[in-house]
Amino acid sequence: MAKKRIDLYFKTDPAWVEVATQDMAKLLADHANCERKASAMATSLIMKYRDRPAIIEPLIALAIEELEHFKQVYALMKAKNMPLREDMKDPYVKQLMKQVRLGRDEAFLDRLLICSVIETRGAERFQLLANGLEEEAMRCFYRDLWAAEARHGDLFVELALIYFDETLVNQRLHEIGQAEGDIVRDLPWASSFH
Amino acid sequence: MAKKRIDLYFKTDPAWVEVATQDMAKLLADHANCERKASAMATSLIMKYRDRPAIIEPLIALAIEELEHFKQVYALMKAKNMPLREDMKDPYVKQLMKQVRLGRDEAFLDRLLICSVIETRGAERFQLLANGLEEEAMRCFYRDLWAAEARHGDLFVELALIYFDETLVNQRLHEIGQAEGDIVRDLPWASSFH
Repeated sequence: MAKKRIDLYFKTDPAWVEVATQDMAKLLADHANCERKASAMATSLIMKYRDRPAIIEPLIALAIEELEHFKQVYALMKAKNMPLREDMKDPYVKQLMKQVRLGRDEAFLDRLLICSVIETRGAERFQLLANGLEEEAMRCFYRDLWAAEARHGDLFVELALIYFDETLVNQRLHEIGQAEGDIVRDLPWASSFH
Repeated sequence: MAKKRIDLYFKTDPAWVEVATQDMAKLLADHANCERKASAMATSLIMKYRDRPAIIEPLIALAIEELEHFKQVYALMKAKNMPLREDMKDPYVKQLMKQVRLGRDEAFLDRLLICSVIETRGAERFQLLANGLEEEAMRCFYRDLWAAEARHGDLFVELALIYFDETLVNQRLHEIGQAEGDIVRDLPWASSFH
């Protein structure tokens, strides 16, 4: 079987870590919101495409796991006396969603692959934090999450391959991956994940 | 400390079980939606009232547990070859939400107590199913969930008591409990939980 993991067409410069971690309270609050929203996105996909039952159990498990991560991030924040913050509209996700084509099948495939690329980008940045942070507990935390996010990135492609031809999946992976690279390249760095 | 559990001012007639279980596929699909929405309600409360940090960890745990229940209900549905169904607007919840008063503190208290009464009503009906269903596996399933829902009913009152005076909490418990009783009394029975 051909590669299943989405490629990142634009690699984040490791110098991103310095900017992202300038305001750890803001970064962790953003992280907590990302986990919570990833869980909500999974339950939303389940309900929207419940006629594709192969996605249901894996995505319920994923939704639970993302809330477990939310819990872990908040435990860390609480220990550091950092509060949850209002959710800001994520320009990265908003721009990515413009890639969703019309048509029920097309939209289903595109949403799965957009979720895949979001998870894969998350994994990349968690890896940068795992390597770049000073506090060992934080490095360890992001090492664990990096592995989970990479696994989720693969999962969404595997789900797509249940319902769509491999050639088509690879083609859309390529197109969406390239679009994502362009979006990330143009976004200013901040103490947030995107 | 005074009683912490909300009273149900209107008891469901055990004959409700017969009507509710006439269409088990519909009832279980409704149940799955209730669990999913209870999880979403908890994360929504966390974000809306994140300046009341004592609610955050208990409600993250509850949100995870509700998704675990969603997973369990779906496993049961899958075994019976029953699909998830579109979420219908719940007239019970919609009417209950009208009890939420204006004012940030007032709305916070009322939302907690409305969640409490919803969980307590869920527990009551799970108990009726645990006693009234024929299939032993299903009786057992609802027995477990009944205990969990009753515990959640208590939890929301305990959270209210962290932030509000006991007399005030008991007074609103009484008012909301009575309003809920009137709402439930007037709703027609169907293969759904409310």
